[in-house]
Amino acid sequence: MKAIEKAQQYLKEFRAIFEPYFSKYLNEKTGELARISDMGRLLTEKIFDFSVGGGKRIRAALVALGYQAGGGGKMEDVFAAAVAIELLHSFFLIHDDIIDLSDIRRARPTMHKMFEQWSSRILKANIEQRQFCHSMAMLAGDLSCVVAIEALISINLPAERTVRAFRKLYAIGCDTVIGQGLDITLPFRDEVSEEAVMQIYLLKTAKYTIEGPLHIGLLLAGADEKSLEEMSRYAIPVGIAFQIQDDILGVFGTEEELGKSVTSDIKEGKQTLLIVAVRKLGSIAHRERIRFLLGNSQISPADIDEVREIMRLSGALDYARSQAQLLAKKGKAELKQLSIAPNIEQILGGLADYIVERTF
Amino acid sequence: MKAIEKAQQYLKEFRAIFEPYFSKYLNEKTGELARISDMGRLLTEKIFDFSVGGGKRIRAALVALGYQAGGGGKMEDVFAAAVAIELLHSFFLIHDDIIDLSDIRRARPTMHKMFEQWSSRILKANIEQRQFCHSMAMLAGDLSCVVAIEALISINLPAERTVRAFRKLYAIGCDTVIGQGLDITLPFRDEVSEEAVMQIYLLKTAKYTIEGPLHIGLLLAGADEKSLEEMSRYAIPVGIAFQIQDDILGVFGTEEELGKSVTSDIKEGKQTLLIVAVRKLGSIAHRERIRFLLGNSQISPADIDEVREIMRLSGALDYARSQAQLLAKKGKAELKQLSIAPNIEQILGGLADYIVERTF
Repeated sequence: MKAIEKAQQYLKEFRAIFEPYFSKYLNEKTGELARISDMGRLLTEKIFDFSVGGGKRIRAALVALGYQAGGGGKMEDVFAAAVAIELLHSFFLIHDDIIDLSDIRRARPTMHKMFEQWSSRILKANIEQRQFCHSMAMLAGDLSCVVAIEALISINLPAERTVRAFRKLYAIGCDTVIGQGLDITLPFRDEVSEEAVMQIYLLKTAKYTIEGPLHIGLLLAGADEKSLEEMSRYAIPVGIAFQIQDDILGVFGTEEELGKSVTSDIKEGKQTLLIVAVRKLGSIAHRERIRFLLGNSQISPADIDEVREIMRLSGALDYARSQAQLLAKKGKAELKQLSIAPNIEQILGGLADYIVERTF
Repeated sequence: MKAIEKAQQYLKEFRAIFEPYFSKYLNEKTGELARISDMGRLLTEKIFDFSVGGGKRIRAALVALGYQAGGGGKMEDVFAAAVAIELLHSFFLIHDDIIDLSDIRRARPTMHKMFEQWSSRILKANIEQRQFCHSMAMLAGDLSCVVAIEALISINLPAERTVRAFRKLYAIGCDTVIGQGLDITLPFRDEVSEEAVMQIYLLKTAKYTIEGPLHIGLLLAGADEKSLEEMSRYAIPVGIAFQIQDDILGVFGTEEELGKSVTSDIKEGKQTLLIVAVRKLGSIAHRERIRFLLGNSQISPADIDEVREIMRLSGALDYARSQAQLLAKKGKAELKQLSIAPNIEQILGGLADYIVERTF
């Protein structure tokens, strides 16, 4: 079996046993918080609806893979930490969707949209619906973060390892919030450099999505700093490749497969590597059209197709694709230096391929 | 010296040594996160401006008092946990101010107002300012929560105790978010019961402001479950008294002393014990006027004075005051049952008095 197929199979099998665990965990929390108040039930149920059954669980699987790479025992040992990572992810996504005013995520309504549906029956005329739904969604996000802490505490491993994993969770949290802040303020500038875009990719994706979960798994297995650094040499380039592929799919993917909008990046004027590449490689006409079309929330479907066409014709799409492939390859090559089981090495290698070849 | 004076002196002395520690801690974090990006510096500086030098530090002092009550060593041992509690508090306040659209907190601009000042120079016309400032403030709140986690990890005590303190932090977080959710949805109902109001006071204040910090201190001293339960018998009534006094000050206090608006509770139509008491004790005319005047954001100063007058004439103010005093007394009486040092007992007793007699 090819490495990429092995990685896909691992993800599939992981999901099949992790998802019922995650679901059971959140159901138990719902029961627990319902005993405090109906509001506890409402908020936890909404976190459940937002989190369970959606997403690829790459982060959760990487916690398990990191644990196995570090010589840990069976992957179920760290499922609670994988839950923590997924709930931290929900926390960031829920707030991210409020920031971006997104309606759809994982083929479902975003959290504030869920509360729009919930509140339309009961909201009185003097309460502003948008403000109310944003508030409730923000709280659901906050609760998701709080419950993530509980999940990590509940792990049944030596307390010293748990404390080290918390320190990593803190570092991931800082990187992600800072990356998100940069993302919001970037549209203030007309000409964003490739370096600035890459820094956001490093913080918001490479460290958060790939390196962080692997490190948490390693730490829970009792690994030392050297093993963490070695793993980073794989994780960082692969993580950046993941984000580039995400950006490509965010413009050239299909809504059915992705479960989210494939026009919102263009409407928001998001500064991605694709845009930077148009400015770098495109003709003056391309650059001027892109500058004109980008960031218009009322843009027509024909104009969106024109943006796509410019990305193709200018060579920006090819450039982004080749960068992603190069980075994935670079990360894979580093795996040879790691002293991990051949089985795990193969899966991580396949994962790097999968990350740049995926269509959702 | 009377117990209340002793408590006030303790708070004053605590503040004098804690505040420089807190300031130094956040300055170090600013330096650390500035190395990630200028955005790290910006967000941490704003957390600093929001958090340091403001607030009474009751929560932080209670962590230290709980530690001493549990037979722990010198209070500096748990300063990092006190920082964690204060940063968790900033997290909730920043988000709370977004929810309530408040402009002033601790005599300073709220976080989203700070970002309004910051962004007015650089914001482009096509970006909606309110949405942008709310987003940045939400992120600053999120970062404050993330840094709170780090503060608690950095504590230099056995890892098992830290893990138990984290579990308590989780419980406090759940109670507070749920209480906040109830607070937002309460105005949906015209007639809110005294029980519903008391439940919010229990969750949003008693558990969060008084019991939680004391428990964290106790846990860090290695105290058992029994000691925690005994402390709760003091903390819960005193905590509810604290909130009742807060509500009284929120209508009858002065903006100079409080550092926040004394009209916003009325404008928002906040369902406090004072309002419940008007419905319970007032005449039909009082009840109808209150129902008419409450929740009008354009209410005139004369009408606000009328609301105050109705609270006085109906006996609602006296009722709320006597409830607060009764609860503080009840909590104080429970202290006799606790096996703690006489010195700490006296301070906690004085604190109960201070809580219902304070004017800010």
